[in-house]
Parts: sequence; structure tokens; C-alpha cells
Amino acid sequence: MSRAGEVLAIIRAPAGAAGSAGEVVENIVARVRALQALAHARGLGPPAGVGIAVPGPLDLVGGHVMTAPHVPAWRSFPLRERLQRALGGRVELENNANAYALGEFWRGAARGRRHVVVLVLGTGVGGAVIVEGRLLHGRMGAAGELGHVCVDPNGPLCDCGARGCLEAYASATGLRRLVAALRPAAAGGAIPPQFLDPAGNFAAARVTAAARAGNSPARRVLEVAGRHLGIAIASFINLFDPELIVVGGGVAGALPLMRGAMMKELRARAMAFTLHPVPIVSGALGQRAGVVGAAYAALHPWRRL
Amino acid sequence: MSRAGEVLAIIRAPAGAAGSAGEVVENIVARVRALQALAHARGLGPPAGVGIAVPGPLDLVGGHVMTAPHVPAWRSFPLRERLQRALGGRVELENNANAYALGEFWRGAARGRRHVVVLVLGTGVGGAVIVEGRLLHGRMGAAGELGHVCVDPNGPLCDCGARGCLEAYASATGLRRLVAALRPAAAGGAIPPQFLDPAGNFAAARVTAAARAGNSPARRVLEVAGRHLGIAIASFINLFDPELIVVGGGVAGALPLMRGAMMKELRARAMAFTLHPVPIVSGALGQRAGVVGAAYAALHPWRRL
Repeated sequence: MSRAGEVLAIIRAPAGAAGSAGEVVENIVARVRALQALAHARGLGPPAGVGIAVPGPLDLVGGHVMTAPHVPAWRSFPLRERLQRALGGRVELENNANAYALGEFWRGAARGRRHVVVLVLGTGVGGAVIVEGRLLHGRMGAAGELGHVCVDPNGPLCDCGARGCLEAYASATGLRRLVAALRPAAAGGAIPPQFLDPAGNFAAARVTAAARAGNSPARRVLEVAGRHLGIAIASFINLFDPELIVVGGGVAGALPLMRGAMMKELRARAMAFTLHPVPIVSGALGQRAGVVGAAYAALHPWRRL
Repeated sequence: MSRAGEVLAIIRAPAGAAGSAGEVVENIVARVRALQALAHARGLGPPAGVGIAVPGPLDLVGGHVMTAPHVPAWRSFPLRERLQRALGGRVELENNANAYALGEFWRGAARGRRHVVVLVLGTGVGGAVIVEGRLLHGRMGAAGELGHVCVDPNGPLCDCGARGCLEAYASATGLRRLVAALRPAAAGGAIPPQFLDPAGNFAAARVTAAARAGNSPARRVLEVAGRHLGIAIASFINLFDPELIVVGGGVAGALPLMRGAMMKELRARAMAFTLHPVPIVSGALGQRAGVVGAAYAALHPWRRL
């Protein structure tokens, strides 16, 4: 990325997330070096910094990844120090949903706003909050886990181990579980083939497409997800008094189908909502938001400690 | 208050909250003038500012009280302008739970902390969040309504009109409702006399005392309240990553009796809580916290617009 926020080059490569902690670091280092070589070949100077978006809560004080569900080997892992040692320059870590929010704030749907709640509905639910134009980090950078606000204490089990988190409803994982729960007991919770991709994996986009075509189980599932998304967003409005709510991620395509149930909860639960409604919009940058935001993090160290 | 945070004088007087919007303003103006006369008699100069703690969500941009359940005549009421006109000097409004938090931050249990969640368990549940040493205000000052986070969408009706807000459990109003719900239908939800004060009003402190003495309905009620307080605080930890949680207000005396059920939910729901537990402590200033915090607000204008 340039300082002005233009994407100069993108390399896509798997991080080898199932490997050892060190192997994942080596894969990242190799990609960063390849980007540096590209920049050098184009006559650009050395980078001002390297920004890394990490899928998991961080301890930014120590530069540790606390846990990263998709990189099992990273537990209390000193990622910042390891990357800095290998790369030489300054490295800023940021949670991937936080990076997404920074991207939308810098170059996307939240440009020029100072109070923003961002939800990323993907495999899980990521979240981030911008307060007075700065990311809400908290004590050590683990704030903004909006996907793990409880919306029903007796609800379905979430991957985090708790019951009834927002993520257990409004994510691909949550939709899969809601679809399975609608099935007759005799089907053993198997997902109907219409909701599977060619490789046999659950595809949230197929639920959205079916609901759009009038399929009634698909509509019911999105109504339940939309209701619980509305319960959570009402709480976020009462907590953060935002100017804007940005919803992105792969499941955000279902937003128009969830909106009815969601708005009903918002009107019932968000204080002063009828007086001061809060716009709820889609992200503008798509999958690039995280990359753009990681670069923003590299240019704006998270806090002077 | 002095600039250093000492209380110089206190006048207690009813605001005549049931009166017209103008009558309540006149009552406040009369008390402020009486305090100014006291300061003048002691040889102090004119005040740097006047801070007002208001029981209800505020629009600080316009200086309006949006609604104040205990002052029915104040709806979208331009309180700041009215007081400024009458008093001449600078007037800062602050929500009363926010003022409580500022008091504990300036002179009480949260001194020196930069990331704090504050709950005031009284007739309702007030809340406030301190982020990087500043109050979380949001778009227009209405942020921090922690009492109106949803902890069970099918729970009891809250005074705000929604179902299952934290306030519907962990406030005096909530405890009253929980006590009534435990009564046999034949009793028509009447409160047993042991939980009433001499004037015949529900007294949360009597539930606490009875629970402490082993009364089993009282214990059950505090367990339910503690459980839902724990669900809410777990969400607050996931959202704000605070260093400290301060719990005050009249119902906070029941905290030791709620702690068991509360901690169980925290351990199950707050991410990384076992790794990084967050202390949950009582407020240190008691009823004075709001007064001290209102003075702090007067000395620190909420935001340069």
C-alpha cells in the first residue's frame, strides 16, 4: 500500500496455518520479502512498516497472539517480536476484524465518520468499534469482540464454548447449525444438499439464494439470524451511540433478507432509535478491507505506551 | 468542589421532579445560586463552571436531555441552554451514571486506571465506560447505557419497554419483579412484608439481608440477578477489554451474594478471562461519586466540537 492508501500489489498465498508456529511465521516472512522485492524493483524505498491482520484476540502490549482458532499452534505466541526479528523493520499487529474496520474507516464506507460499529459476518463474527476516530483497543488490544456478546444465554453453543453468542447465529457456522436444527431428527442434523457447495461443504450463500427464491426453511433460518443480529446491534447502539454501523463479510449478502426481523428488534430495544436512527450499511471494500486496514495500522502505531 | 477535587459544601434538596420543565430548572438554579453565595462568603472567586448530573440519556451536541424517566416534563429539553441563560457561566451536562464513573475515576476506586467499566445498580442500572482515560460518549453523548444491554430476549419486561435488559434483573426494580415472580399465583405477585420498608415500599436491602440470613427465596432471587449480571459483564469484557470493573449503587451491597453465580458466567463467557481476569470492585465514594464526577465534567468540557 502507498501512504495515500492505494493498493500497489497483492500476493495471495496460504499461510500454512496447520503447521508449527515457526512455519507459519516463515510463510508470512517469505510473502513480505516478496512484496519488498516487488517494491524495490519498482524503485520504491523501504517500507515504513509492516501491518499484520491476525484472526484472533491479541495482547498488543506484549505483541502476543492470545489464541487464533485457525492457527492452532499460536497460543500466547510472540508474533510481533518474531516478525520484527526476521524482517528488521517495524511490525504492527491488529486483529483481523479491527483491520477490516480500519480499512473501511480509511478508504471505505466509514470514511470521515468518528463513531462506528463494524461487524464482519464470516465463518465467525468479527467486530470492531471506532471511538472518536480511533480503534477501541482496551487494556491490551482485545476489545471489540462483538461476535461474543451474549444474545440468548440458553441459545446454541458457540465455537468459543459459551451459549448464545451473536456468532452462534449470524455467521456461516451459526447458519449451518440453524439449518441442521430445522431438520427432522431422523435426518440426524444432516445438511440438505441444496445448501452444500460442489465439494460438499455448507455454503451460506446457498441459504441466501434459496431464501431469495422463496424457500421457507431458508427464510426461517435467516429470520432467526436477523432477529439475533438485531438484538445485538440494539445493545451496541445503547453501548456505543454510533453514527454508523457497517456490516461486511461473506454472510452480509443475506442482510436484505435479515433486515425485517433485525429492524423489529432495533425499534423495540435501541433507546431513542426512533428519534435518532442509525444507518446500517454494507462494507465498501469487500475482502480488501483487511489488507487496507493492516496497512493503516502499520502507518499508525496502535498506541504510544 | 475545589479544582483539586475536595468537596467544599453540599446542599441536598429535592428537584421537584414532578413539576413543569421550567420549575425543575428554577429549583436547580436556586441551589446553584445558594452554593455560589456560600463560596462568595468564604472568599472564593466565581466558579470555573457548573456540572449537572442528569438521570437520562443526553444529546450533548445540542445540550438536550432526550428523556429522563424521573423528570417526565423533560423530553428533548434544552437544559444546558436554559441553565446557561439563568446562571451566566459555563454549564456542562453529564449523564448521572457517567458522572458517577468520572467521580470514581478522579477520586475513587478507578483512580489511575485508563480502561474501566462502571455499573451503578440502583432503582435502574446506570452504566459508563472509560476508554483511554476518557468517558465513552459516542455520537452525541448517549453511549454507555450498560443497563440496556439485552441478557435474555425472552426475559422480563424492562422499564424501557424491551425484554430482558440487564436492568430488568440487577436493579431494585428488577429484584422486586423477581421476588414477585417467585410468589404463588394466588398471592397475585404481592411482595412479602419482610421485603418492604416501614412505608410499605420494596426495599432491595431487605432481600440482601434475608439472603444473608439464609432465606431461600431471597437467595434464589439474588442468584438469578447475579447470573444475569455475569452474562452482561462477560459481554462487557469481550467488548471493552477493561482493566477494572466498578460496581456501585444501592443494590451493590448484594454483590457478595451474587458473586458465585456471576463468576460462573464470567468464566464460561468472557474470552481469555482465566488468562487475564478482570477485578470487579465496589465503588469507593458512595452517593458522592455523582457530585464529584459532575464537578470533574465542569472542569473538563466533554469534547471540542
